[in-house]
Amino acid sequence: MTRAELIQQIKEKKSFLCIGLDTDLEKIPAQFLEMEDPIFEFNKAIIDATKDYCVAYKPNIAFYECHGTKGWESLRKTLEYIPQNIFTIADAKRGDIGNTSLYYAKTFFENLNCDSVTVAPYMGEDSVTPFLTYQNKWVILLALTSNKGALDFQMMEDAAGEKLFEKVLKKSATWGTPENTMYVVGATRAEGIGEVRKLVPDHFFLVPGVGAQGGSLEDVVKYGWNDDCGLLVNSSRGILYASNGADFAEKAKEEAMKLQVEMSILLTQKKFI
Amino acid sequence: MTRAELIQQIKEKKSFLCIGLDTDLEKIPAQFLEMEDPIFEFNKAIIDATKDYCVAYKPNIAFYECHGTKGWESLRKTLEYIPQNIFTIADAKRGDIGNTSLYYAKTFFENLNCDSVTVAPYMGEDSVTPFLTYQNKWVILLALTSNKGALDFQMMEDAAGEKLFEKVLKKSATWGTPENTMYVVGATRAEGIGEVRKLVPDHFFLVPGVGAQGGSLEDVVKYGWNDDCGLLVNSSRGILYASNGADFAEKAKEEAMKLQVEMSILLTQKKFI
Repeated sequence: MTRAELIQQIKEKKSFLCIGLDTDLEKIPAQFLEMEDPIFEFNKAIIDATKDYCVAYKPNIAFYECHGTKGWESLRKTLEYIPQNIFTIADAKRGDIGNTSLYYAKTFFENLNCDSVTVAPYMGEDSVTPFLTYQNKWVILLALTSNKGALDFQMMEDAAGEKLFEKVLKKSATWGTPENTMYVVGATRAEGIGEVRKLVPDHFFLVPGVGAQGGSLEDVVKYGWNDDCGLLVNSSRGILYASNGADFAEKAKEEAMKLQVEMSILLTQKKFI
Repeated sequence: MTRAELIQQIKEKKSFLCIGLDTDLEKIPAQFLEMEDPIFEFNKAIIDATKDYCVAYKPNIAFYECHGTKGWESLRKTLEYIPQNIFTIADAKRGDIGNTSLYYAKTFFENLNCDSVTVAPYMGEDSVTPFLTYQNKWVILLALTSNKGALDFQMMEDAAGEKLFEKVLKKSATWGTPENTMYVVGATRAEGIGEVRKLVPDHFFLVPGVGAQGGSLEDVVKYGWNDDCGLLVNSSRGILYASNGADFAEKAKEEAMKLQVEMSILLTQKKFI
């Protein structure tokens, strides 16, 4: 998917919501557990219920991989089921030397036909650029994450006061363009989002941490907004597990709609729609 | 596998060789391509030919994942085929927030029964420690990698002159112990290995970059040795693709043996055996 198509979709749906498909057999309603492919069937129901309110889906690969070939098949079917006009993110946090990254790119871009994949920057340029060789496919690079451990290394400062995450942004921005690179920027550090925005004014951010992890949508927009919206805000558990009863899909829809309405108001305030 | 068992194996086999199973359909002999599971059959032949000369096998997950469920099945069969007394490394470079890392740990430690998994440190403590909750299983954390991109961020220095990879070593050494944590330290930076050794005197290192990438075995031992050997030196392509003719297994055996003999001499010089 191109950047222009993504922006168009945000305008049409009045939403910049990404729904994380962290589908967990221990949390989905019991009715699915007897089915042949519980994960796919649950995802299907969630997608049917929420697809009008979000512009992206983000399967968290760990939740599929841990079921071996069966999980991999659930992932494939899920990605195939997601409507073509919705942006797909393989949340895989991959990254290895060039030759290997090329195979990861093949996995997610060719075989699974995802629009994007999340990548960890520790190994530097030649671990990231192989993902950038695909037309209309995206790298979403970890910059400032939403977890506690983000403070361990990402905030490290050099003698000039430049932090590791700032170095990651500056360097990686020269490897790709705002047409093929996004950044993961956690909502739990609202002011951090502002710092990131200063360094990469044009790039889209994938923002986890709203909802279950405690970040606020208003703050994300306050600090992260750019002229093209520039934001995909992710919610996973808050939507998927809004209820674990028979009404799970209805409740998921309500939660997604609630966020979409909030986003629609913010988009209107910003005169984006 | 415990640390003591690994050390015992190094003594018995007079080898600290790890063979990387980066099995690539474009590189394996044509005779395999008509088989039902070429990757597994090739690996099986390689394992049969080399298992007396190495103490570890390291499947590079990207090369399996890129074939979807079929590749995942080749991986499972390969791991099952590796003799129990040989250390197995899932070279996966995973790492995500706690909940997700726990699922990655489940994948590699429970489902695939690997002894260890490589992990990227960018997200910090809570992305690494879930892997450390398993008894006799290992995290192999990226410290100083062998690729060119390692220079982009790993060598960043703070005001006190401490580099990022040094911070990673110091902090992570407190998360686990030398009984459950190893480090990836590239052979292409021999003096870097010495710096790493000073900071973590007791840990094992997984050392890629000998052979195809240009690192020297003697230098690795010179800079990386500790009282328990403390080294697993990896070779992938140099062994797997020593020949792409009908004699591939014989040539792979020769290459593995050549390294084992070299290692045996170094182990004797160090009075380890």
